[in-house]
Amino acid sequence: MAEDIKKPFDLSNYLEQSKNKIELALDESLGPEEPEQLRTAMRYSLLAGGKRLRPILCLAACELAGGNPDKAVPTAVALEMIHTMSLIHDDLPAMDNDDIRRGRPTNHKVYGDAIAILAGDALLTRAFEMVSIRTQGVPADRLIKVVGELSLVAGAPGLVGGQVVDLESEGKKVDLETLEFIHLHKTGALLSACVICGALIGGAEEKLINALKTYAKGIGLAFQIIDDILDVTASSEVLGKTAGKDLLADKTTYPKLLGLDESRRRAKELVRISKEALEPWEESSEPLRALADYITNRDR
Amino acid sequence: MAEDIKKPFDLSNYLEQSKNKIELALDESLGPEEPEQLRTAMRYSLLAGGKRLRPILCLAACELAGGNPDKAVPTAVALEMIHTMSLIHDDLPAMDNDDIRRGRPTNHKVYGDAIAILAGDALLTRAFEMVSIRTQGVPADRLIKVVGELSLVAGAPGLVGGQVVDLESEGKKVDLETLEFIHLHKTGALLSACVICGALIGGAEEKLINALKTYAKGIGLAFQIIDDILDVTASSEVLGKTAGKDLLADKTTYPKLLGLDESRRRAKELVRISKEALEPWEESSEPLRALADYITNRDR
Repeated sequence: MAEDIKKPFDLSNYLEQSKNKIELALDESLGPEEPEQLRTAMRYSLLAGGKRLRPILCLAACELAGGNPDKAVPTAVALEMIHTMSLIHDDLPAMDNDDIRRGRPTNHKVYGDAIAILAGDALLTRAFEMVSIRTQGVPADRLIKVVGELSLVAGAPGLVGGQVVDLESEGKKVDLETLEFIHLHKTGALLSACVICGALIGGAEEKLINALKTYAKGIGLAFQIIDDILDVTASSEVLGKTAGKDLLADKTTYPKLLGLDESRRRAKELVRISKEALEPWEESSEPLRALADYITNRDR
Repeated sequence: MAEDIKKPFDLSNYLEQSKNKIELALDESLGPEEPEQLRTAMRYSLLAGGKRLRPILCLAACELAGGNPDKAVPTAVALEMIHTMSLIHDDLPAMDNDDIRRGRPTNHKVYGDAIAILAGDALLTRAFEMVSIRTQGVPADRLIKVVGELSLVAGAPGLVGGQVVDLESEGKKVDLETLEFIHLHKTGALLSACVICGALIGGAEEKLINALKTYAKGIGLAFQIIDDILDVTASSEVLGKTAGKDLLADKTTYPKLLGLDESRRRAKELVRISKEALEPWEESSEPLRALADYITNRDR
């Protein structure tokens, strides 16, 4: 008889294995069909490291839905491409004018504004290619739903809409409602799309999709609150981007609106709600629940 | 008995009816979900007029394939969105730095660089939304193929790749091969995608798809040759954009490489080959064949 003693879920091992799979797929995702300069610029930002939380969430959700996570790898790559393109465009001088990202010069500092804009455009379209052309063995009706999710999250109802309101808010007094609009659009929507797309590839039922929406909404806001806290408490060296920039730019942040302690309390409560939503799925939801804790305990 | 006398195909009536259908669909394609400023900027360029040749080609190809062209309307709109976003980004100061487009100030001249970049991004993602979410009554396996075509044409293997090589070529002596690479990627690929996507929505067989590829390749290059000729021979007032700009920027053009007469002859020959490819489909291919003539006879 099999032993009844349950081995505790090993998150760091899970993260390492998933990350390796993602890094390999990202490395192989850009072919020789691009002009050399463009491909180099796309790779520079896409392979700049990072925790790869978004694609990992996608694979974990696919598995939770009973699917083979390997089939979700192109979609996971697509999500990281969309994330990367939004960083490249947001960093441009015409937008947030950031010089440093992940401890390195931003894309336009290395390749110039024109190539940075085009590298972003190409990553965005390549994301849709990953789902529509480079995915194997997934029914077309699931894929077209994934395309729909990506089109919403990357565009005006998601990242672009959030960035517009973010730009409009700079230097202004912003209330909590506007702050949450920005974060839901710039951060939460993409994290949500990660789990929804993974679950769609895995063939999830409506009940699981809804639970994942609750889960993602919670971790999305928690993620942003922690980001704001780290911007105040951590150094630029640890963060790999300019720390304290939000304060300098007079941006509204959670610590500024609620104080550090209340911000931390709120993040913890959001994570609790997120994990609770997935409890009915017991052990198969362990990776996603552990990821929720990981997000609030991170130091960068 | 029905009369045997065949009524000649009325292209101008066909163009007017198709254009009206497209204009209406374009007008309805942007909802209230975008932040006001973004939506205004998107509409400014999307509804700036123009012949709407690309969406009309899409509807005509759908009908030629035996499909109901109304089902291809969201895809036709998507193609015009992709065309528009590439114009907005190409016009940016970091790229071609154009002030006038279709007789009006370019998008960034009115809304600033940041909003122009974001309006382009949002139009690109909205294009994929049109196909994946806003298309009714078309099987998912056809739609996912359309998404694949759009992802290739809008990205590095199409518009973006062409623009990169175009930027790299500025001020340099460019040979015919590089010139055709640029045009195939910046103009031809999208015209081709228009007829292929329309045909896919209509359920075209392989044989028709291949004929349409030949057709599109010919009209694509012919279209660009005529553009180059008009840049030399027409005034800015007629063109609605800065005429002679290619000469000023020392860009390689067909008239410069081949002379005006040889350029005209080549465009005519390409159109002949295009029309020939569709002859087996007789009357049902009349709109597309008439459109091929129209493209070489235009004066703007």
